[in-house]
Amino acid sequence: MKYFKEWEGFQGRLWKEEVNTRDFIQENYKPYDGDENFLAGPTEATNTLWGILQKLQKEERAKGGVLDMDTDIVSGLTSHGPGYISEETKDLEKIVGLQTDKPLKRAFMPFGGIKMAEESCRNYGYEPSEELHKIFTEYARTHNEAVFDAYTPEMKKARHNKIITGLPDTYGRGRIVGDYRRVALYGVDFLLEEKENDFNNCGCGTMTDDVIRLREEIALQKKALRGMKEMAEIYGYDISRPAKDAREAIQWMYFAYLAAIKTQNGAAMSIGRVATFLDIYIQRDLEKGILTETQAQELIDHLTMKFRMVKFARIPSYNQLFSGDPVWATLDLAGIGVDGRSMVTKTDFRFLHTLENMGPSPEPNLTVLYSSALPENFKKYAADISIRTSSVQYENDDVMKPIWGDDYAICCCVSATQTGKEMQFFGARANLAKCLLYAVNGGVDEKTKQQVGPQYMPVTSEYLDYDEVLAKYDAMMDWLADLYVNTLNLIQYMHDKYYYESALMALIDTEVRRTFATGIAGFSHAVDSLSAIKYAKVKAVRDEDGIVTGYETEGDFPKYGNDDDRADDIAVWLLKTFLEKIKKHHTYRESEPTTSILTITSNVVYGKATGSMPDGRKAGEPLAPGANPSYGAEQNGLLASLNSVAKLPYEWALDGISNTQTINPDALGHEAKERIDNLVRVMDGYFDQGAHHLNVNVFGKEKLIDAMEHPEKEEYANFTIRVSGYAVKFIDLTREQQMDVISRTCHKTM
Amino acid sequence: MKYFKEWEGFQGRLWKEEVNTRDFIQENYKPYDGDENFLAGPTEATNTLWGILQKLQKEERAKGGVLDMDTDIVSGLTSHGPGYISEETKDLEKIVGLQTDKPLKRAFMPFGGIKMAEESCRNYGYEPSEELHKIFTEYARTHNEAVFDAYTPEMKKARHNKIITGLPDTYGRGRIVGDYRRVALYGVDFLLEEKENDFNNCGCGTMTDDVIRLREEIALQKKALRGMKEMAEIYGYDISRPAKDAREAIQWMYFAYLAAIKTQNGAAMSIGRVATFLDIYIQRDLEKGILTETQAQELIDHLTMKFRMVKFARIPSYNQLFSGDPVWATLDLAGIGVDGRSMVTKTDFRFLHTLENMGPSPEPNLTVLYSSALPENFKKYAADISIRTSSVQYENDDVMKPIWGDDYAICCCVSATQTGKEMQFFGARANLAKCLLYAVNGGVDEKTKQQVGPQYMPVTSEYLDYDEVLAKYDAMMDWLADLYVNTLNLIQYMHDKYYYESALMALIDTEVRRTFATGIAGFSHAVDSLSAIKYAKVKAVRDEDGIVTGYETEGDFPKYGNDDDRADDIAVWLLKTFLEKIKKHHTYRESEPTTSILTITSNVVYGKATGSMPDGRKAGEPLAPGANPSYGAEQNGLLASLNSVAKLPYEWALDGISNTQTINPDALGHEAKERIDNLVRVMDGYFDQGAHHLNVNVFGKEKLIDAMEHPEKEEYANFTIRVSGYAVKFIDLTREQQMDVISRTCHKTM
Repeated sequence: MKYFKEWEGFQGRLWKEEVNTRDFIQENYKPYDGDENFLAGPTEATNTLWGILQKLQKEERAKGGVLDMDTDIVSGLTSHGPGYISEETKDLEKIVGLQTDKPLKRAFMPFGGIKMAEESCRNYGYEPSEELHKIFTEYARTHNEAVFDAYTPEMKKARHNKIITGLPDTYGRGRIVGDYRRVALYGVDFLLEEKENDFNNCGCGTMTDDVIRLREEIALQKKALRGMKEMAEIYGYDISRPAKDAREAIQWMYFAYLAAIKTQNGAAMSIGRVATFLDIYIQRDLEKGILTETQAQELIDHLTMKFRMVKFARIPSYNQLFSGDPVWATLDLAGIGVDGRSMVTKTDFRFLHTLENMGPSPEPNLTVLYSSALPENFKKYAADISIRTSSVQYENDDVMKPIWGDDYAICCCVSATQTGKEMQFFGARANLAKCLLYAVNGGVDEKTKQQVGPQYMPVTSEYLDYDEVLAKYDAMMDWLADLYVNTLNLIQYMHDKYYYESALMALIDTEVRRTFATGIAGFSHAVDSLSAIKYAKVKAVRDEDGIVTGYETEGDFPKYGNDDDRADDIAVWLLKTFLEKIKKHHTYRESEPTTSILTITSNVVYGKATGSMPDGRKAGEPLAPGANPSYGAEQNGLLASLNSVAKLPYEWALDGISNTQTINPDALGHEAKERIDNLVRVMDGYFDQGAHHLNVNVFGKEKLIDAMEHPEKEEYANFTIRVSGYAVKFIDLTREQQMDVISRTCHKTM
Repeated sequence: MKYFKEWEGFQGRLWKEEVNTRDFIQENYKPYDGDENFLAGPTEATNTLWGILQKLQKEERAKGGVLDMDTDIVSGLTSHGPGYISEETKDLEKIVGLQTDKPLKRAFMPFGGIKMAEESCRNYGYEPSEELHKIFTEYARTHNEAVFDAYTPEMKKARHNKIITGLPDTYGRGRIVGDYRRVALYGVDFLLEEKENDFNNCGCGTMTDDVIRLREEIALQKKALRGMKEMAEIYGYDISRPAKDAREAIQWMYFAYLAAIKTQNGAAMSIGRVATFLDIYIQRDLEKGILTETQAQELIDHLTMKFRMVKFARIPSYNQLFSGDPVWATLDLAGIGVDGRSMVTKTDFRFLHTLENMGPSPEPNLTVLYSSALPENFKKYAADISIRTSSVQYENDDVMKPIWGDDYAICCCVSATQTGKEMQFFGARANLAKCLLYAVNGGVDEKTKQQVGPQYMPVTSEYLDYDEVLAKYDAMMDWLADLYVNTLNLIQYMHDKYYYESALMALIDTEVRRTFATGIAGFSHAVDSLSAIKYAKVKAVRDEDGIVTGYETEGDFPKYGNDDDRADDIAVWLLKTFLEKIKKHHTYRESEPTTSILTITSNVVYGKATGSMPDGRKAGEPLAPGANPSYGAEQNGLLASLNSVAKLPYEWALDGISNTQTINPDALGHEAKERIDNLVRVMDGYFDQGAHHLNVNVFGKEKLIDAMEHPEKEEYANFTIRVSGYAVKFIDLTREQQMDVISRTCHKTM
């Protein structure tokens, strides 16, 4: 059993025998069921630093979205000297560490793809280094190059026609959450020892490809751990040993996360479930009398400030998919332990309180692991913050806990992973709405007129027959699932080969569980279109080439989002059918296939590439995001809409079911307390039905329109809204995206 | 069916339907059974160029072995401008192309391992580039680094203690022979088309790791083919189309080989079986009257000159293993077709004739695929050349043809591979002599005293009991074979990953047969030691730690190399037993396990690391090379020695059985004709018994001793001898190696 003097006062045994952060938390955390009145306001240092940062953010926006950029340094753990928010105020920073040497300066990260690294430079007017171009084309291969080298023509075509979309082949797959807390709890040296032990016990001696690959990965992880220590030394810290107090714990943990974001630019670079863990250190210091509440809050504020600064250089096509420069620095709060104790601590309050101390912000992506059994005080405080900032999302701990235990984290928007025990092969999504159109047109794309899918017999009748369409849809989905899974197999293989996340995987158990995350786009439109064909009369309108490019739907039909089983049953069927087809296939490294109904903001680009549908959606219009009912489909109010979504079994979409709702403040009540109580009641009801996720926005359409027209108004500088799975500053969205948000249903009644 | 105007006059059909060089040869070559009288002497151009080259070779030797070296250019297909033997005489060069921009200047090749590339520079007083150091440590991983990262401690220990030796982890595995003739016959564009077709037909759509890896490899092959065209353009040639005449055919083929040696520095970089192929082009030109015999010979001389210039930068440990700067530019002659026709053409004579026109030379490693059925005139001419130059080796076509067909090539010393259809995972060798000592000492190394093998029960008796030792040897070989195969699995995996031979594999069928070549060192000593234990009385002499470090053998015992079945049966048993143990294991990419009895010159280093043996060999003394009987063991003359070796079934050592013999000229007769006839008779008899290989040296010990003492004498400048599997300039060997050669049996009687 290990013992470090830094552990004085900590209880428990198992976590001292092995790396086991969860056991440490369970043995040591102190649930808090009080209210928010203990919270402290911002310190002067916080105000000063946040003031500087806001100025920088303004400059960044003024410069077109990027303040500064590296063009000739390859980002790595030790590629940069120390960086601070400003040189003059560096002593004010309680928690230090930047991705580069300057705040908001974006790093040059070529391993995912030199083309994209260069494009992202040029995209913002910077000229990338010629020398690095030569190196990363002639000497070092990159993920993107390797993937495109190996793609089949069919894959390229499906990708080009956007029936398979948003693939992580031009950006890092991300979504891996290192257990950053381990560095604080154990120090790097012990983690190195444990990895050394894993290395020595890796394989029985028979060197199959799998064993060799894993051995090399562990070797790379060890290298990354040594690199982390060097990185911390640049800032004057020795993280080889465990953290001795709250400030060190936060700093050590942040260094671990910093190592991740210095070496990887995945779409989602989530932080994980850190609040309860950090609370143990803060609580110990408070009890020892070496920390005040104000100081504690300052630490959390300064940490949060760092999370608000995470930036990556992106290319235009990425920005179209994921609008508003998100990084999914998702940070989870609350939840209930498997022993039934609430895991809410004062630090869960402190994180929410950063939205008051420093105003709303899209990052970190604050996520409440919700249960109606959470302490009432916390639920109310979270609801209050939601109503005031629209910066919080909620995910159902009651459905996730049975599957992932009580130490999972959300690794992007809605996807749970067991912290330190699991990694995910993120795989974007298949457009099931377009797939339905392919079924009708015998695999011909309705926009490009290319034969993309197999040349099956198209529908030739004037009016669509439900059974015929369903059979064709089933066959076309078979093709799509096959191609999709295999495209992902290829991408994930190459990502492991050329852009392995060694700094993140170093903080995850060597014997790791791997999930294979597929996803669905166009869900509601596929559902409603099938419903239209079944319950109304749908006439196919063909163009001069005989391709069906329009639909005329006569009569009414039930729509998903109204708590009407006729439509909702189709939704459930579609999810189940797609998942079954996905599961039939070989998956890379025998990972477990899952799926999600989640589009993030890519619903707009996906919609652009998708023709008119029988449900009435016109060609080019945005798809509904995630699992949301279609725009205008919801006719029976918020609760009916939530009921429809809640019918989708989480077990069939373990990668998450994203639902984003906007509620007019007046629908919740006329004064703060009433609104809070009502929102808590809505969520209790929604989640008790087994629904998975809710993005809560509380504002009226008028505010959105005003912000779109007058982005210069000071009140909109940090105006944050929840879009599908993340939060974003509204004024950072493109006008197209803003219009999409505005056109979404804003519930005026419950 | 393809048709190119360059093919005018060529017969056959299948080779026009698919890439099939063998079919082209069989349909078009013209056997020659005449004598050597048609041959032409060197042209003035040849004399001039060879004169310059010899001067450069002298300078090279004077400078300590390396004339010049790149330190800041990474060798690649297009990394250098055109290079010539000398600028002034470049118009004399009928065949052009150098590895770098200057003759004998060695290229910087870091992909196998930046450490070795740098060490090889420093080894010769050059300072490698700091920039490239950074690139190949921080951005690009190399084979060597990856292998050592993944090795188990046990592997490192076995390697360090040299029970597994000479592993290709600090040098390229080599031994892959591209079908360089394809570029001449088809031109690069057609080969590209065919690879594109393979790419499109690679896998059924299910992206398993194997399929993905292969798809990426084909993509890299296509890239290499495009690079070859660019490389040829640098010299002013367009190799996208087939060669139109003999000069182009030789030039195109050489460019293909040049692509290999610009991108890979494997130990053995063999040329293959090109004589019969090239003869078809020469014959066509001769018949058309556009080429004379003198011009034809000049082309072959100039091509050969290029092969004599192939050089790589090596590290000291490599030079110890493979003494005298060999590259195994092995070039095969003769053989019999499966239809029974001799494949000897005039060009087979022309290649042998280069040893007369330009004097003896170790490279190209001229190898006669022997059969007693070869035309007498050719056999005699080859024997004559052997007697005069000791630069030729012989391998038994009669035993190889049934297994590899009639278009195989020797890819190093003795290892056959089907040209264009096969590649080999070269894996050096296990020291079975040392393994026997481990069996006695319970896995403790007799030199380092480390516990290297498993801690089995050692022999504790004073006198060794045959059955006990045999059982222990069997168990220890089990361990060794397991560890050895898995070490190789790891090396080959990483070689494919970090140092894939794309330019060579581009000239091999995509559906490639892969062999997994293991090897045996210390063969004769293990055999004779077992024989001593069985037939004599062997006393174990233990040191103060109880480790057996010496043996006292009382009485006589039969030895391998005397045509005595008692010893030879043990030899056969040992080969069979080892191969069976190798075959039990998983091999990388499901390659076919083979083994060889071949040590090259590494017998000296291996011997250094091996303790005293029961057969009387003292600690540190060289092992006998390859399958040779031990020094001094042969008591019954050359034929008895050959008979012993011939008993080893080739089927159990498909990677080759190397036998090197030195015959005193007087033993062969007293005048040239008698000697030639006798040597032919010896070889006919030897190979008709099914023996695999013979290196023939014809000289007396006195000459060796004189050359060692007086290397400055002009007559020794090109004095070439055959060592185990290759030829070498005697004066380029270290004194230690020279002493070893001198101490070998020189047969004075038949």
